[in-house]
Amino acid sequence: MIVVVCLNPALDVTHHVTTVNWAGVNRPTAVHARPGGKGVNVARTLRALGADLQLTGLAGGVTGAGIEAALGRLGVPTALTPIAAETRRTFTVVDGGGAVTAFNEAGPEVTEREFAEFRGQYDKALAGASVVVLSGSLPRGLSAGAYATLIEMAAAAGVPAVLDTHGEALLRGAAAGPAIVKPNLEELASLAGRRLSAADGGPDLTAVTAAADKLRIAGAQAVVASMGSAGLLAVTGDGRWLARPAAVTGNATGAGDAVVAALAHGLVLGRPWGERLRHAAALGSATVAAPVAGEFSDYDYASALSAVTVHQEEVG
Amino acid sequence: MIVVVCLNPALDVTHHVTTVNWAGVNRPTAVHARPGGKGVNVARTLRALGADLQLTGLAGGVTGAGIEAALGRLGVPTALTPIAAETRRTFTVVDGGGAVTAFNEAGPEVTEREFAEFRGQYDKALAGASVVVLSGSLPRGLSAGAYATLIEMAAAAGVPAVLDTHGEALLRGAAAGPAIVKPNLEELASLAGRRLSAADGGPDLTAVTAAADKLRIAGAQAVVASMGSAGLLAVTGDGRWLARPAAVTGNATGAGDAVVAALAHGLVLGRPWGERLRHAAALGSATVAAPVAGEFSDYDYASALSAVTVHQEEVG
Repeated sequence: MIVVVCLNPALDVTHHVTTVNWAGVNRPTAVHARPGGKGVNVARTLRALGADLQLTGLAGGVTGAGIEAALGRLGVPTALTPIAAETRRTFTVVDGGGAVTAFNEAGPEVTEREFAEFRGQYDKALAGASVVVLSGSLPRGLSAGAYATLIEMAAAAGVPAVLDTHGEALLRGAAAGPAIVKPNLEELASLAGRRLSAADGGPDLTAVTAAADKLRIAGAQAVVASMGSAGLLAVTGDGRWLARPAAVTGNATGAGDAVVAALAHGLVLGRPWGERLRHAAALGSATVAAPVAGEFSDYDYASALSAVTVHQEEVG
Repeated sequence: MIVVVCLNPALDVTHHVTTVNWAGVNRPTAVHARPGGKGVNVARTLRALGADLQLTGLAGGVTGAGIEAALGRLGVPTALTPIAAETRRTFTVVDGGGAVTAFNEAGPEVTEREFAEFRGQYDKALAGASVVVLSGSLPRGLSAGAYATLIEMAAAAGVPAVLDTHGEALLRGAAAGPAIVKPNLEELASLAGRRLSAADGGPDLTAVTAAADKLRIAGAQAVVASMGSAGLLAVTGDGRWLARPAAVTGNATGAGDAVVAALAHGLVLGRPWGERLRHAAALGSATVAAPVAGEFSDYDYASALSAVTVHQEEVG
């Protein structure tokens, strides 16, 4: 079983409006409300892959209950720990002219006691876990070391961890020795304190490798950098791999979460690095091609899979 | 007991933003989520008045469950009939500069079968009712005659009804003989097919009376026209009354609902028309002075009560 941790889920509400009247009353022509947050996207992708999974995390109030009910309808098994504060909503207005405006609530403040309760539930889930995925931002009230704590607990139970977060939580998490961390270029650049792009606008792979090595030195066993249309670069103890997908247009939201889901799935299946990356790059592409984060078509996945090129690189 | 019918409740979400970025991501500084809809406002006002009440109506999905939970926390007794479709949300962005943008969802489509189920619950509630209040718009799927049906059921149970709606539902409802209908000037003007304002910008009381008489001719026993700061005009079989509040500044949202609550409360208490209107006008004023619809301070209510002037008018 893959245990997915989502400590800060969201209810993502989208209103489609023909032409927004910013000074009056609008009547949306279409309304969508979906459970979101990076961990939720990972869980939905794993569910679509047919993986055995459980989504754990924190959920509070009416919005938390709503997310739980919606995940139930989507067939995603959940074991969310209740918190007192209200789970966050994101609210996005999409104008017929293409303008997109987002309003992201700050989300709940989690207490020490609630996080302790979560750890109790998480520890039980670890007993049946083969991989743990920790994904997304930390809610207010939790220290930057929260993911490190959860990775240490997983290690104590012999369960490898995949971490996808940013900033201090990523650095501290890497120090707890996860099997894989998956930063994107922006997160890596922020950690490295420098731009990682080459003169042609694409990523400077030497610089990306150097930034990834910082996370390996900190403690991560492997680093997979997601570089958008430039693909994935894996820097591991066994070598360095580059997976490049075919060009695809669409909505990049959730593509990184699909990559994380595929990496976790590949770990469970014991896929070697080359194959693991091929699937991760293909699933990322297929998710870009789909209109909704966390979804993809089997056709796009299969097409992308045969189009991805994977090279094991000389470490130079 | 006062039975309040709210067939189309809403969850009113408000985001406060310092300066809206209409082309990007906003992080609200404050978020409020409150149960709303005209019937809900009436129920909250009656609850604050200490009246014995029950809120009936339709609630669906996560949003419906959220409204029910929030009303429970507010101490409003509810008996809402579940529906399959999702109860509507309204989403309002308030900019620090004063700009207000609203996004109002269309709301659920209600099936014949769900409305039949509601009528069963409503019929039971009528057994203990002394007054019924029917307030707000009808959800999609219900015919314009829905309120008329409910008023006829109340009449069969010997329970007087107060109706606050607009358009065809108001006309059809009036034909079922409710004790009071409470249109505002805009709704009356729309029924009359003409403007109802005098040369000085205030209401033309002769024209308002003529428009109200149309509703009496249709079947309403009494019409109370709410005219904003110009007060209330009651056109009844016992005469015509005009109640004028002192000038007040604030948020007029929900003031009409407070008037409806006070009229229903006055019916239960057996207050004569003059007193009934005095309380209704005062409660409307106190609600304008309060920042949130459905709320008022006892101090504002008491002050407004002594400031209202009520005249019985010659019918000319």
